[in-house]
Amino acid sequence: MEPVVLKELLLLEDLSPAIEAVPSLHPADVAEGLKDVPFEQQLRFINLLTSERAAEILQAMEVNEAAEILNGLEENQAAEILKHMFTDEAADVLGELPEEDSEKLIALMEEAGEEVRELLAYEEDTSGGLMSTEFITVQEGQRVGEVLAFLRKQAPSTENAYYLYVVNQAGVLTGVVSLRDLVISPLTTKIGTIMKKEVISVPEDMDQEEVARLFEKYGFLALPVVDMDKKLVGVITVDDVLDVAVEEVTEDIHKSASITPLETGYTDAGVWTLFSKRILWLVGLILVNLVSSGIIAAYEKVLASTITLVAFIPLLIGTGGNTGSQSATLIIRALVTGDVKLAEWGRVFLKELFVGICLGLVLGAAGTGLGVFRGGPEVGLVIGLTMLAIVVVSNLIGMSLPFILTVLRMDPAVASSPLITTISDASGLVIYFTIASHILRLQ
Amino acid sequence: MEPVVLKELLLLEDLSPAIEAVPSLHPADVAEGLKDVPFEQQLRFINLLTSERAAEILQAMEVNEAAEILNGLEENQAAEILKHMFTDEAADVLGELPEEDSEKLIALMEEAGEEVRELLAYEEDTSGGLMSTEFITVQEGQRVGEVLAFLRKQAPSTENAYYLYVVNQAGVLTGVVSLRDLVISPLTTKIGTIMKKEVISVPEDMDQEEVARLFEKYGFLALPVVDMDKKLVGVITVDDVLDVAVEEVTEDIHKSASITPLETGYTDAGVWTLFSKRILWLVGLILVNLVSSGIIAAYEKVLASTITLVAFIPLLIGTGGNTGSQSATLIIRALVTGDVKLAEWGRVFLKELFVGICLGLVLGAAGTGLGVFRGGPEVGLVIGLTMLAIVVVSNLIGMSLPFILTVLRMDPAVASSPLITTISDASGLVIYFTIASHILRLQ
Repeated sequence: MEPVVLKELLLLEDLSPAIEAVPSLHPADVAEGLKDVPFEQQLRFINLLTSERAAEILQAMEVNEAAEILNGLEENQAAEILKHMFTDEAADVLGELPEEDSEKLIALMEEAGEEVRELLAYEEDTSGGLMSTEFITVQEGQRVGEVLAFLRKQAPSTENAYYLYVVNQAGVLTGVVSLRDLVISPLTTKIGTIMKKEVISVPEDMDQEEVARLFEKYGFLALPVVDMDKKLVGVITVDDVLDVAVEEVTEDIHKSASITPLETGYTDAGVWTLFSKRILWLVGLILVNLVSSGIIAAYEKVLASTITLVAFIPLLIGTGGNTGSQSATLIIRALVTGDVKLAEWGRVFLKELFVGICLGLVLGAAGTGLGVFRGGPEVGLVIGLTMLAIVVVSNLIGMSLPFILTVLRMDPAVASSPLITTISDASGLVIYFTIASHILRLQ
Repeated sequence: MEPVVLKELLLLEDLSPAIEAVPSLHPADVAEGLKDVPFEQQLRFINLLTSERAAEILQAMEVNEAAEILNGLEENQAAEILKHMFTDEAADVLGELPEEDSEKLIALMEEAGEEVRELLAYEEDTSGGLMSTEFITVQEGQRVGEVLAFLRKQAPSTENAYYLYVVNQAGVLTGVVSLRDLVISPLTTKIGTIMKKEVISVPEDMDQEEVARLFEKYGFLALPVVDMDKKLVGVITVDDVLDVAVEEVTEDIHKSASITPLETGYTDAGVWTLFSKRILWLVGLILVNLVSSGIIAAYEKVLASTITLVAFIPLLIGTGGNTGSQSATLIIRALVTGDVKLAEWGRVFLKELFVGICLGLVLGAAGTGLGVFRGGPEVGLVIGLTMLAIVVVSNLIGMSLPFILTVLRMDPAVASSPLITTISDASGLVIYFTIASHILRLQ
């Protein structure tokens, strides 16, 4: 069945055809179909499902939407559904609810609630906040056949059954066995002889961007999380990391245009949210722009006497802003992906100095031509030199600001195109009027 | 052993300590350690490894670096290493070499070369270009015990042994069984009864961004690729998709600042590459900027008579550019992630119209204050109204351009901050001078 058809069934008064369709659909498709259905109808539908199915579907929804639904359900039923969710997903959803409500639900979840409570104690954007506590542990001394029999009997419903973690008596992680290695090994082999001893694990408080980078580097399906005593406390799976990667990138991209990151997608954000995420930046940038206006005001007499100079203002400061945006964007992305390290700033500075001079020479030549054409050789010289200087300086401003922000322990992505453009504008005007005053011998 | 220590060993004249360290390291760490080692030394090191180890390490390197090394090795040895690589990785590396060289190596690869040759026929950024031809197929009639025995005997070294694909006599995909389900089912169960019949598969020519979106939505570890007759032709694994996600994002981010995407990371790109990826955009934007200059030149007399107006130019057009960058960035990202669909342009237009009016009212009020302070009530009125109009118009330009580009089948990310800023500048000046002429009754 197509998700489109499901959407129509979900809108019917009689929900039984929709309920019947669920088993043949992927939970993610059901979640998508529910998106455009009125909230009351969503509740009715979830109410008619078994807790297992409801858990699968809520896990596939956006966290804030799943939380709203759980909040709308009767408490005992909400707790029952939460019990069937993976611990990491349950913790994410409960984290969205007011503490009072989540505490009530956790209490109703009994044993499963305890694990979720522990997960909720971690920062959301760290490895602890990403990990699930469902994992399979084995001992070095066990034999392959014994482990296979155990798996067959337990039929673990864990999110990640593809790696088995080997721990000693104290719970310390000593090795890892992939399900593939288990399956292809003779039944009498001991786990200790087929396990990989060099396990790459992460601490509980690693930043999620760093975790995503490790997954990308090593191509893992899952990574174990250990506490300070190297005891295994959780597992992060690659699907959670893919979500993180997309989320972090959207944040970075929004910041690149001076927008405070939205917590939801664009479609779910209302006019007021969009307004409030943008207005402060715009007002702040006006303050920076006032510097540019002040510089022009200071040179008003000069400009009035040589009015041709005004026509070149957008050209010169625009090109400076564009150049600065380019270098800032290149450097921010290189810093975020780990391609460039903070310590390499000297090498990057020299590189961008050269690139800036190359760009400046070409653009300066173009500027000279335009200046000569509009105002004669002297104006041509002014525009050409100004263009060269503005391009080199803006390029270095764009390159430096992300480094400076990183040193100040701020997010380099704050060095957005609008911010760089606005700073370049002011410095560009100073360069312009200084050069023009000298060459044209203005007062 | 720490990768840092490895790097030191790799620089020694005697490479045997480095070679001894390899088995205890993850191939990705060895690849990282090799990054800063001179090319000749890299070749010496790879030459000393077994083909299996060399293949693992080359797979973990950047594709262009791996290609350079293969090119530097003796042909027979290069072919031997390629044979031990996964077919998708081998195809990626061979795709970087001149056709003549890759043809020679493919011929030397014998049987394995044929599969790689087929993969090379696909476009690089489609599902066909991402998939590997290593996968395990089973038949509905087989029993679990039989399949497990088969796996134990064959010990498939496939990249993805976590899903087994069920095909009929004609090779048509009819179901999928996860290794987990296989392991937990009774040995006498038939595959047909435990397989998932609703397999989500992708065609050979699906765009890689679309593929990444499916992985994100469903949380799969792998996705099967089928041809027009629904025959299984390959499998895409999640680790390849994570690489794609990061790569595509870097491209989008670079485009957002009017930079033609680099094929390598920033560090690997030389001054000339960086220059050439940026200069055409900057020159092109100058042409757009000329429009702004032309508009100012046309109003030179007006400006000379009321020179105060000049000081507000950077403030007004700067704010317009910033507003347009914000809405363009929001919409591009929403279109790329599939949050907003093309057909929804009407709803988005209205939303951005409202957001623009809200932003414009606040910024217009600020503008009025500044205008009154600098030039009296009439100038205040001019600046306030202009600010409101510019913000609303720029916001709609920023929102519309990504939609227009998408309709024209161009990449919406081309609507970069510099492009939007430059277009906003020109339209902002027209608005400014029109309003000023009317209110101040200038000729």
